Amino acid sequence: MVKQIEISLPNFSRGFHLITHLVTRELGDLPEQGLLHILVKHTSAGITLNENADPSVRVDFETFINKLVPENDPDFIHIYEGSDDMPSHIKSSLFGAELTIPISRGRLNMGTWQGIYLCEFRNYGGPRKLVLTILS
Amino acid sequence: MVKQIEISLPNFSRGFHLITHLVTRELGDLPEQGLLHILVKHTSAGITLNENADPSVRVDFETFINKLVPENDPDFIHIYEGSDDMPSHIKSSLFGAELTIPISRGRLNMGTWQGIYLCEFRNYGGPRKLVLTILS
Amino acid sequence: MVKQIEISLPNFSRGFHLITHLVTRELGDLPEQGLLHILVKHTSAGITLNENADPSVRVDFETFINKLVPENDPDFIHIYEGSDDMPSHIKSSLFGAELTIPISRGRLNMGTWQGIYLCEFRNYGGPRKLVLTILS
Repeated sequence: MVKQIEISLPNFSRGFHLITHLVTRELGDLPEQGLLHILVKHTSAGITLNENADPSVRVDFETFINKLVPENDPDFIHIYEGSDDMPSHIKSSLFGAELTIPISRGRLNMGTWQGIYLCEFRNYGGPRKLVLTILS
Repeated sequence: MVKQIEISLPNFSRGFHLITHLVTRELGDLPEQGLLHILVKHTSAGITLNENADPSVRVDFETFINKLVPENDPDFIHIYEGSDDMPSHIKSSLFGAELTIPISRGRLNMGTWQGIYLCEFRNYGGPRKLVLTILS
Repeated sequence: MVKQIEISLPNFSRGFHLITHLVTRELGDLPEQGLLHILVKHTSAGITLNENADPSVRVDFETFINKLVPENDPDFIHIYEGSDDMPSHIKSSLFGAELTIPISRGRLNMGTWQGIYLCEFRNYGGPRKLVLTILS
């Protein structure tokens, strides 16, 4: 069986944001077993699983990725929308724009410390759209 | 229901290439709702979603990733097939060799600006094989 | 149809480890066609597909990723559990903690040279738990 929902997230500032609750509250009753797939319909944001407890992890992610993919690299051509333009595309592909999570006993079956991060790589990304697909 | 197809892409030069049309034309009629999974059956190429309009994005990806994973790093052992050997393995795992895309209303449901990139990391990679799996 | 199994891997040292055999031996009879999804239930380890023949590839991966995400970066806040703490979270999201592999003719359908790597990013990560989900 396939169930599918499209949602819009609220505006997020540039950085890494825990959105597990925003996703699960949209899902309704989950099947006993299956998979949840999440697509971020954008090329300048990402989605990943990581630590859900200490907010400093998300701060460190932002610090690190900005050093790894620096803005104002004179080699970049695609910077029409600002210095965060091409770097945000690269970050999106390094983290990925889609994610699959198992469903067990009617709940998302992640590790205790795992949460879903929305990675906002633009300075002003606006509300991001997700496609949620449940297969069972 | 499961439908599966194996395809060979044409030879691509080293770099990032938009292959959305090459994938969709092989799929035939898609189900109303479901998921498409794509595996690149190689360890020196990758697949990712990114910007489908401006070719300079793909040029900037190639420029960036060659700086991030430099060839001729004296620390690399596995360079039997040339200086692009080990770097291409690393790039493959950073971008990933597989991808899942939702299907809605009988079509791939990506963002307006999202396309499928084949990431060719070898100088002479040859024709790359993909496994396409549709679940519905 | 959905089939799901949770397994614990043996302790692995820090580095990249081929676990294809440890996964496949737990799966039992596979369906004719479908998908296998694997989640690593941890935020300081990863999973990826890469070269299954030459062990030096895994050594080079460890060498490279330690240079890409250096420990003792004075900018990191989240290092309560040691200098490998925050770097292991970052590496987990760069490689990803989940993976999907097609099943064809009752077997995992990967490339000849592809194997499943468990990426252990902690000095002492302990036994890692995986959720294996088969959809067909």
